[in-house]
Amino acid sequence: MSSAAILGASGYAGGELIRFLDAHPVFEVAYLGAHSKAGSRLGEVHPQLGGGERILGSLDPGDVPDVEVVFLALPHGASAELGVALSDRGISVVDLGSDFRLDSSERYAEAYGSPHPHPDQLGRWAYGIPELFREDVVDATCVAAPGCYPTTAVLGLGPLVAEGLISKDGIIVDAMSGVTGAGRGVSAGLQFGAVAESVKAYKVLSHRHQPEMERALDALAPRQHQVTFTPHLVPMQRGILATIHAPVVDGVTLADLADAFDERYADEPFVKVSEVPPETRWVAGSNTAMLSVHLDERTDRALVLVATDNLVKGAAGQAVQCANLMFGIDEAAGLPATGALP
Amino acid sequence: MSSAAILGASGYAGGELIRFLDAHPVFEVAYLGAHSKAGSRLGEVHPQLGGGERILGSLDPGDVPDVEVVFLALPHGASAELGVALSDRGISVVDLGSDFRLDSSERYAEAYGSPHPHPDQLGRWAYGIPELFREDVVDATCVAAPGCYPTTAVLGLGPLVAEGLISKDGIIVDAMSGVTGAGRGVSAGLQFGAVAESVKAYKVLSHRHQPEMERALDALAPRQHQVTFTPHLVPMQRGILATIHAPVVDGVTLADLADAFDERYADEPFVKVSEVPPETRWVAGSNTAMLSVHLDERTDRALVLVATDNLVKGAAGQAVQCANLMFGIDEAAGLPATGALP
Amino acid sequence: MSSAAILGASGYAGGELIRFLDAHPVFEVAYLGAHSKAGSRLGEVHPQLGGGERILGSLDPGDVPDVEVVFLALPHGASAELGVALSDRGISVVDLGSDFRLDSSERYAEAYGSPHPHPDQLGRWAYGIPELFREDVVDATCVAAPGCYPTTAVLGLGPLVAEGLISKDGIIVDAMSGVTGAGRGVSAGLQFGAVAESVKAYKVLSHRHQPEMERALDALAPRQHQVTFTPHLVPMQRGILATIHAPVVDGVTLADLADAFDERYADEPFVKVSEVPPETRWVAGSNTAMLSVHLDERTDRALVLVATDNLVKGAAGQAVQCANLMFGIDEAAGLPATGALP
Amino acid sequence: MSSAAILGASGYAGGELIRFLDAHPVFEVAYLGAHSKAGSRLGEVHPQLGGGERILGSLDPGDVPDVEVVFLALPHGASAELGVALSDRGISVVDLGSDFRLDSSERYAEAYGSPHPHPDQLGRWAYGIPELFREDVVDATCVAAPGCYPTTAVLGLGPLVAEGLISKDGIIVDAMSGVTGAGRGVSAGLQFGAVAESVKAYKVLSHRHQPEMERALDALAPRQHQVTFTPHLVPMQRGILATIHAPVVDGVTLADLADAFDERYADEPFVKVSEVPPETRWVAGSNTAMLSVHLDERTDRALVLVATDNLVKGAAGQAVQCANLMFGIDEAAGLPATGALP
Repeated sequence: MSSAAILGASGYAGGELIRFLDAHPVFEVAYLGAHSKAGSRLGEVHPQLGGGERILGSLDPGDVPDVEVVFLALPHGASAELGVALSDRGISVVDLGSDFRLDSSERYAEAYGSPHPHPDQLGRWAYGIPELFREDVVDATCVAAPGCYPTTAVLGLGPLVAEGLISKDGIIVDAMSGVTGAGRGVSAGLQFGAVAESVKAYKVLSHRHQPEMERALDALAPRQHQVTFTPHLVPMQRGILATIHAPVVDGVTLADLADAFDERYADEPFVKVSEVPPETRWVAGSNTAMLSVHLDERTDRALVLVATDNLVKGAAGQAVQCANLMFGIDEAAGLPATGALP
Repeated sequence: MSSAAILGASGYAGGELIRFLDAHPVFEVAYLGAHSKAGSRLGEVHPQLGGGERILGSLDPGDVPDVEVVFLALPHGASAELGVALSDRGISVVDLGSDFRLDSSERYAEAYGSPHPHPDQLGRWAYGIPELFREDVVDATCVAAPGCYPTTAVLGLGPLVAEGLISKDGIIVDAMSGVTGAGRGVSAGLQFGAVAESVKAYKVLSHRHQPEMERALDALAPRQHQVTFTPHLVPMQRGILATIHAPVVDGVTLADLADAFDERYADEPFVKVSEVPPETRWVAGSNTAMLSVHLDERTDRALVLVATDNLVKGAAGQAVQCANLMFGIDEAAGLPATGALP
Repeated sequence: MSSAAILGASGYAGGELIRFLDAHPVFEVAYLGAHSKAGSRLGEVHPQLGGGERILGSLDPGDVPDVEVVFLALPHGASAELGVALSDRGISVVDLGSDFRLDSSERYAEAYGSPHPHPDQLGRWAYGIPELFREDVVDATCVAAPGCYPTTAVLGLGPLVAEGLISKDGIIVDAMSGVTGAGRGVSAGLQFGAVAESVKAYKVLSHRHQPEMERALDALAPRQHQVTFTPHLVPMQRGILATIHAPVVDGVTLADLADAFDERYADEPFVKVSEVPPETRWVAGSNTAMLSVHLDERTDRALVLVATDNLVKGAAGQAVQCANLMFGIDEAAGLPATGALP
Repeated sequence: MSSAAILGASGYAGGELIRFLDAHPVFEVAYLGAHSKAGSRLGEVHPQLGGGERILGSLDPGDVPDVEVVFLALPHGASAELGVALSDRGISVVDLGSDFRLDSSERYAEAYGSPHPHPDQLGRWAYGIPELFREDVVDATCVAAPGCYPTTAVLGLGPLVAEGLISKDGIIVDAMSGVTGAGRGVSAGLQFGAVAESVKAYKVLSHRHQPEMERALDALAPRQHQVTFTPHLVPMQRGILATIHAPVVDGVTLADLADAFDERYADEPFVKVSEVPPETRWVAGSNTAMLSVHLDERTDRALVLVATDNLVKGAAGQAVQCANLMFGIDEAAGLPATGALP
């Protein structure tokens, strides 16, 4: 067994990490840390989990024991210092936050409006979508697990970009997410009364997952991709559907598009190409991304539809998948490939 | 008072028509007709409505009395004969179905794969979006009330098209609808278990509202628009959000886009331009369309977000709005401009 | 026209009051007051409403103009001083809060654990369920509009209690409410993630609506009723269903029960007796209570099912109904008797 | 490994059985049978499951191979012949249907209005709530897995009945269920438009789970219990909350009630006694029942709140739990004790 710590245990992603690691054949949870919930019983914070008598510790790195791997599931900005400090102790780190996802201090400054606190670190962190950057992850001791929207969108664009089938411009990602994507923090906009029976777009033309998507695509083909990303909040707990439009290169056919996905994902345990448009409930609770590909022949645009569970493939599940690779374990260990909705 | 008949009274749109007309200052419901529910008490079919003791009659035109206006809320294909027969009796007709929405037999054949049963009729039917085609409606005795998606999308594109601010190509409409948009027919795909906690795209690249959108845009600017339309089903009862992308013409600014909407809609009782992205719950139960406009300056694309209630502005409300115009009544008579969700 | 003020305009009930009064034939909104939202535009606080350019004033009684009626839609404890001060100015008051609902300082002290701030006032306030206490309301200048659960339960128990058909003991009310019943305050327990896909009981054996129910029943038959009340939160915006059990007096038949309701409610515009169990969506958006009555002959227990919209018949609608009576207007003026869900 | 067949694989419970057995350490799915979906790919019927290329076979017993255990997840009436035929071949049978749940032909006739087709069989089938009837299950080759409502209610009443703490009369069970409890059949009443934003009671005083509850309680204490059971449909996919009222015997205290649960369930892996009222989302996706106990001292009534997942502890999970016992395997093998909602 390899010992693991989870920092940010009280949030949604933290809860899912506990659920997966408690059932994991190799990793063993040795420490749970939280911010305002430090000192609470796990059962009060996550009544759905077993082992509720465990007490949450703090986020103070001095309190974190010498585990082999730590998962950080913290708000933006909270991972940078903690991640570096733990990594410096020789602990492998999987950061579910956004601090180490961008590839350059320029892009970070553009996205966040402030300089990165540890620009020298950026090159050390692998970008953790195993299906597209597996070798980076295998070799890494520090992994930045991608955001839920970028995971979903980049899985749908990556093979087309890598094969040179679509233009770098004119890429449009309209994505719909359940509320858990916004985290467990309490806010007026996430009250049931504000979410149920309604749909809205938010952070229009200003969501920080847009530069992250472009960074990932640029890594797959060295050109400057431009993505117009519009996230939407829909009244459900979990799930993301990304509806992706991209102009195809002259002469590209639907078969070319389909082949690109089939070749890239044929042996992947957690990506399924579907003949029909995927529904998010088909992947709820699972680490699977399900996608379908279409071509609008009138306008020469590829249309790719990708469904994930934002808390699993979009967060905790993919983080465990990365850790499995970092530790040389079966990549699928401890991870559900089957959805939990009937 | 002017007497009115509603044919297709048992469906969702039919129920809303009854609700609006029962409270209307001028129209008076004289006849309710239905297909399989003929002979039923209204209260069994629509327990939410008052006057439940009324008995639904048939759809047989011979049973329809000599009213002044008839509203047809029937499935595709059912309106053509009935609409012509009633119109020939001198009754004004507002058809909420799709039979008379397209402007040419060519477009109809392309959309529906079969010739129009009354091609000579197509020119007689006004396309009923009052904010964009008011004069046509005022002068008409036959109005084709638009589909819910086209209403929503065309209200968001119309002013930009009319002012020549966007390209005719590369228009993308990703729209999300609640389930009532699919009508009240029973199907496996509309069971709660198949809809709740999930989002999906459907009728990908094949929805018949796409040619209807293009037809409406072509009427506003005589060029052949191409729209890529992808509808999505989201777990809510009512509401449509259309997220619309369109390349702007060189040099067009956000102010130009905003001006186009302000000028067109400033005096409209049922269109509100919002500074923030609209939420569908803000218009639930009301005949209002609410929209916001944005410009992605990196990619020179307009982004327009439009929210409507698919059963009101997208169906029964707009139908009554058209009838008001046809009869020279206050256009807003009997119609809620205020949403019913708290 | 009679001028009206709404204090607590930013909450859910406040929004509904504005919606109803803006469309009311007699009352005219002259002032809107709010606590933390004072100074805001109405359109920011309630985007669904028309007239959004109105600015919310304060709750300071000195700021409230000399209107003819004021509606208080404030949290518990906030109405007592304000209600008395405004009443002392000769303004009619309808209080949607709980401060004046109980009939004695003893019951108040028991329910709230502290003495009533104005015990001398308690006898002045009529308990505003018109169908059961109409004369009190007609004569009153101060009305305490009942809570949503008591309205629903007491409408289902009142006729049986008044006719002496059920025991005063062993009354069980299991009620299910949508989230708007909890008000618009932000809390972790009302986040979408905590409410959707879940049901729970809350305030078990300790909800303050229980003494209110008993107080209302005692007023209908002078004996000490005992109610066991268990509220449940269900994942919907609006609506209450009360499932009520009560032992019947020896020899009472189902016909006796049905007759009691028919006689009491036959001419009521806002109570419908249904042959089938009512669904809350049938009354969503309307001021109607719908109920069905059953008898478990094996156990000699009446079972009454009552559905209301907690924000309308359970709050703002009933408050307007009371004000109509206080001002000698048609009791149904400005109030929807038809549901807004399809 | 032990081979297993699932008949009724296309329904909700069937899908959950496949999910659990595909991950089970001992049972191995050897055959999937369905009625109208025979011949379909599993992936079409249950897109959320892995192994989608499997083809569903028929329900013809001649097509079922010689497995060691068969799970029947069929509509009422379909299990009787099939269950007997398979049992006669020496196959262990766990029937999730209602055909063998009642304990006498008299009770069956009363509940279903027709004689049992195999009255001689009734004594052979163990009633499969392991926490209350474990020995029966361990010894059985035929188990009738209980209904979802009876499982939930009887877990909350059983210890009190067994310890003689409550009266046999005056037991009231008001229970709320998500839609999957009604199965996957398509009907107007289960359309999203009929379920969302609404609550209703159904099968009032006539649900067949009432005699099943009484049968189970009678088996725990030999006296004729009378239960008034009212099921409610709430807008969620999964979960049951049973709110149970029962008069306590003179002198019984809250401590007595709590002790009864603690003693009975202390070592149970799948029942948790909670200090706070349980929420159904805490057990969604898990085989756990969570309950809290309260005493209304004013009326001397116990109040027990029990939450389960109707498809897991209320159906497929409990069926696997029973099979584990029948085969001498760890009772918890292959079963989640942790909820899947965040």
